[in-house]
Amino acid sequence: MKKIQGGVCAPIGFKANGVHCGIRKNKTKRDLSLIVSDARAAAACVYTQNLVKGAPILVTKKHMADGYASAIVCNSGNANTCNENGEEIAEQMCGLVADAAGISANDVIVASTGVIGQPLSLDPIREGMPSLVSGLSEEGSSLAAQGIMTTDTIPKEIAYSFQLGGKECHIGAIGKGVGMINPNMATMLIFITTDAAISHAMLQKALSADVKDSFNMVSVDGDTSTNDMVAVLANGCAGNEPVIAPGKDFNAFRKALNKVTTYLCRKIAGDGEGATKLLECKVTGAKSKAAARTVAKSVIKSNLFKAAMFGADANWGRVLCAIGYSGADVDITKVSVDFRSRAGELAVCRNGSGIPFSEEEAKKILSEKEIEILIGLDDGSGKATAWGCDLTYEYVKINGDYRT
Amino acid sequence: MKKIQGGVCAPIGFKANGVHCGIRKNKTKRDLSLIVSDARAAAACVYTQNLVKGAPILVTKKHMADGYASAIVCNSGNANTCNENGEEIAEQMCGLVADAAGISANDVIVASTGVIGQPLSLDPIREGMPSLVSGLSEEGSSLAAQGIMTTDTIPKEIAYSFQLGGKECHIGAIGKGVGMINPNMATMLIFITTDAAISHAMLQKALSADVKDSFNMVSVDGDTSTNDMVAVLANGCAGNEPVIAPGKDFNAFRKALNKVTTYLCRKIAGDGEGATKLLECKVTGAKSKAAARTVAKSVIKSNLFKAAMFGADANWGRVLCAIGYSGADVDITKVSVDFRSRAGELAVCRNGSGIPFSEEEAKKILSEKEIEILIGLDDGSGKATAWGCDLTYEYVKINGDYRT
Repeated sequence: MKKIQGGVCAPIGFKANGVHCGIRKNKTKRDLSLIVSDARAAAACVYTQNLVKGAPILVTKKHMADGYASAIVCNSGNANTCNENGEEIAEQMCGLVADAAGISANDVIVASTGVIGQPLSLDPIREGMPSLVSGLSEEGSSLAAQGIMTTDTIPKEIAYSFQLGGKECHIGAIGKGVGMINPNMATMLIFITTDAAISHAMLQKALSADVKDSFNMVSVDGDTSTNDMVAVLANGCAGNEPVIAPGKDFNAFRKALNKVTTYLCRKIAGDGEGATKLLECKVTGAKSKAAARTVAKSVIKSNLFKAAMFGADANWGRVLCAIGYSGADVDITKVSVDFRSRAGELAVCRNGSGIPFSEEEAKKILSEKEIEILIGLDDGSGKATAWGCDLTYEYVKINGDYRT
Repeated sequence: MKKIQGGVCAPIGFKANGVHCGIRKNKTKRDLSLIVSDARAAAACVYTQNLVKGAPILVTKKHMADGYASAIVCNSGNANTCNENGEEIAEQMCGLVADAAGISANDVIVASTGVIGQPLSLDPIREGMPSLVSGLSEEGSSLAAQGIMTTDTIPKEIAYSFQLGGKECHIGAIGKGVGMINPNMATMLIFITTDAAISHAMLQKALSADVKDSFNMVSVDGDTSTNDMVAVLANGCAGNEPVIAPGKDFNAFRKALNKVTTYLCRKIAGDGEGATKLLECKVTGAKSKAAARTVAKSVIKSNLFKAAMFGADANWGRVLCAIGYSGADVDITKVSVDFRSRAGELAVCRNGSGIPFSEEEAKKILSEKEIEILIGLDDGSGKATAWGCDLTYEYVKINGDYRT
């Protein structure tokens, strides 16, 4: 497997673009993105589990009923959620793409991100569509990545090449965070493309399994968004023997998919609203995989722990506290905690009790940009990793007046 | 029912005191408190549901096995949790109180609050005990309230007089917050005294029922503490016919108890770490009481919503979002949301969609110190109230380096 350039356009047969159409007031911010596959592609999606679902989610679910799609359109600046005419507007967005790109509206995946509860006008989207479509190119991935950003500080894209049955395949993605993010199924916008040939059923199987250990293990603030989704298009242009059942090729595909999703998890957590640090909580020795996930997520979500990490304060008691209220079946008297970063590794808790450590050493380790929290439960073989970020003044500032 | 002065010493036969004994470095901060009843009292407790339980919780559970107690001792500055010798120290604290006050160690309720995982030395407690006990008085409630404070900015005490079977009874309390607070059974330290005569069983029944709608409905930061408890002592000194079964007197007692607990919920939420505003989320029309509680707690816990309230931003979409991921069975298309404060009341959402409102009016209402969020679900008769606070720069500051 090899990291390559090109994001969603790295796979053969995909073009992308992102423009400023006027949904956002700031003209320097792109607010409308499009990804189009030359060939109709097998598609798979996972959606937010929030009962309040953005209108684009409802429309995408309809369009995805047959398991195929050709394009993904996404605007930022407005979530098109909790609006009376939301579904109508989302359908019309798909219609505009279909007309301009010469595909069926039923083959368009639509997504929106931004403020909830403000009507989304179709006018800027209608006006921007010609330049959006005419500007589609194989170099357009980073433009598309910019067009879906909200409070993200950096665009997020990634691509890998990998082998399936002797053929070189490619997989690429763009993604956005970075608030309202909490582990509960597909809590952000992630668009993945691949030229691998794989059936809709196997693609969905791969994606659904993957998110349990990738996007569902990311938390920025404990809020599960109304709008977020992960969508994958697989257009088969690489010419490999189609993957239609479990086996060696399917496993190779899953591995490539996981490379891309894990990369984006780390990027999204590290770019969490106001974040100064990426936190990676690795749990081992749990009674079960589920218990490991529960513990890792509980720690990564604790406001108190997140604030301590912002202050580079080795307050491991808050880790124990979050393990204790996680709901997982844990023997607290067996718990160990270590902090690790580029600056070193430090044991702070053994058998559920504190052990002496150098505060100076701890400060050095916790002042790095990427911190690992290693939790041993000594009670089985379940393990899991969760990603998050510190809680900062900036998070409060960003969210204290998001709408203005 | 009448609000009176005196806190935990308002009921007949209770004395209290709070001193600085040296657990905290800051000599102006009291760090050791004691409440003593002249007569051995029926007692009831509820404890944190965190699997990690402070050593004082474990010792108190043992001492409470017979349903009676005479004293409550509590230190701040150190939680005596996750320490190897924690239970031993907690037992010795009770022993020191017993020796100095001439009661049985088995009749002492012990509590600690502060940093987790740092050994608690008995030395300052031993040194402070003589002055703590000799200074016990009927005017000592506010000193005791000061001695249990951690990051609280104001001491919290309250008392009411009420009638039971024609006799005047009294109920008083002190309490402390204000971080690591999340609705999951007794998530703070609350000590309640009453001179009403009531059996241990009925006292426990009243308390256990009460916390479901009082302390379990308070959230400051979503973190359930390891150490917190609510304890009630009822010494019977008022001379009323003892309450030993459900009925009119039991209901009158529950009402008085709820006056005290609700007052403290509001005080603790309003004094939440770094808080500038008290948030009171009132849900009506839920399918069930449980659904109403779930929705109210989900909204009051949302970081995004809390940050919006800090900024006086009427971002009601975040209320809908938090309802949607609460897990409660809700018909989103029927939801209504209003904001209310001393400055007025404003409808912002009807039938799950936004309605036009004046941003200026919203700003005025949300700039007050106490904000009500009124959520109508139009789906039944379940209702519940939850209390919380806004998320501020100050919360991050307080928790970024709590230990130093």
